[in-house]
Amino acid sequence: MTKKEKRCADESRRSVIIGAGAVAAGMTVAHLGGLLTPAHAKDGSTEKWPWPYVKLDPTTTAEICYEEWYRVFCGAAVINSVFNQLRDKVGEPYTSFPGDSFTFLEGGQVGWGTICGSAAGANIVANVIIGPRIAGSQDGHHISADIMQWYSEVNMPVFVPNKPRIDPAKIVKTTSQSPLCHISVGKWMKAAGLPLKSAERKDRCARVAASTAYRLVEILNEWHAGTYEPTDTFKAAAEHGITGQFNCMECHGDDVPEAPQGI
Amino acid sequence: MTKKEKRCADESRRSVIIGAGAVAAGMTVAHLGGLLTPAHAKDGSTEKWPWPYVKLDPTTTAEICYEEWYRVFCGAAVINSVFNQLRDKVGEPYTSFPGDSFTFLEGGQVGWGTICGSAAGANIVANVIIGPRIAGSQDGHHISADIMQWYSEVNMPVFVPNKPRIDPAKIVKTTSQSPLCHISVGKWMKAAGLPLKSAERKDRCARVAASTAYRLVEILNEWHAGTYEPTDTFKAAAEHGITGQFNCMECHGDDVPEAPQGI
Repeated sequence: MTKKEKRCADESRRSVIIGAGAVAAGMTVAHLGGLLTPAHAKDGSTEKWPWPYVKLDPTTTAEICYEEWYRVFCGAAVINSVFNQLRDKVGEPYTSFPGDSFTFLEGGQVGWGTICGSAAGANIVANVIIGPRIAGSQDGHHISADIMQWYSEVNMPVFVPNKPRIDPAKIVKTTSQSPLCHISVGKWMKAAGLPLKSAERKDRCARVAASTAYRLVEILNEWHAGTYEPTDTFKAAAEHGITGQFNCMECHGDDVPEAPQGI
Repeated sequence: MTKKEKRCADESRRSVIIGAGAVAAGMTVAHLGGLLTPAHAKDGSTEKWPWPYVKLDPTTTAEICYEEWYRVFCGAAVINSVFNQLRDKVGEPYTSFPGDSFTFLEGGQVGWGTICGSAAGANIVANVIIGPRIAGSQDGHHISADIMQWYSEVNMPVFVPNKPRIDPAKIVKTTSQSPLCHISVGKWMKAAGLPLKSAERKDRCARVAASTAYRLVEILNEWHAGTYEPTDTFKAAAEHGITGQFNCMECHGDDVPEAPQGI
């Protein structure tokens, strides 16, 4: 079985992964006979997918992201690092996307420590370009899962900017095992012994954003070239009957509750 | 001290809440002499804030959101419930916002259980309309915190649609004490004894989305009328030196790590 065939074979299995989401979506699609055209689009200009994409340079993107972090922070930096280039190379619909609005993704959404803004920003970019799974392609959905798993497993930060504000030798690397800001930043602060306000922590997060933008563009280039293959390996809803991460015991310890099953 | 005076007095304290974010932003603004015009905007049409807003009816919004959940799920349902009305009443820039792309917010971002899509969608709406704090107003930032705290503390679901798909008497109510999908849905499933795939769980989440849209529009109407006052009461970065929620012990138990302090 080729990779492409395997992917196709996996599609039906994947379609039940998101639990209620996928099931309900399937029901809706069946009920309405397909939803390729959103019901509410007025002119459809921004809700026809995929948006036009041109191959981008990962290093250039990461450098833009690193600089943008110091202006708009993690989430908006990832979004702007991709969309500002596409504004220059493509124009609309990217010109109309209000990237700076996503500054609020900082600190896991205004400091609440939920999903890291870098991962959230990457998920937004992938799904705005490729479109939602209800419009026909599962790729934006898969890329989001790929990015979150990669983010959780890689030793961060990966990317070293051309002109780092802090000597890279002073920035320790850590593996978050989670896409959550609180856990990612907390593990780094513990390993570094440095506070949230430190210049090293800020530069670490700027480089995490740049690393995420780099990886995102690598994947988007593969998707654009038709060679993209999903790499995420776990499905919380299908495997555990609840939305969640891959490492239940890290938070629950030995006392992992069993989700109600059935239906 | 009036509420308005108290709010003004609180502003300087609030400005350090987000830790590195606010501090770095302050430095950036000081360095560049203000950032009211984003550096990269081509025509500025979507990055001039606030976007035009007209008063919306919370009940109408919640009903739209409830129906949209069964098409695009929590995050995009909240976004579309507000923006589709503003497309009709205002037109651009709302017409160009690709609301359906945010279907991926479902299940805490493609099933990963991070921030509930309803809260994430509300945060997007508030910050796209009001703009980022780096552009001059802190209100979008505050409304996000207000929504996440309200979401965590209220007995959900609040809103009862006019034509519920499931008898409301069959939907138990729970308090999540968190804006995270995994925790919000998990506590509900435990109390209800029902699985993720159940029709009751789906309708509960549709009503959580509708409840969040209702509350969001109540707040946006206050903001539009000039009577908005932030209601969030905790600041993780300022109080604990790390991004996070308000209830450390719920996950950490008695062994709450102390974040490195200083600088």
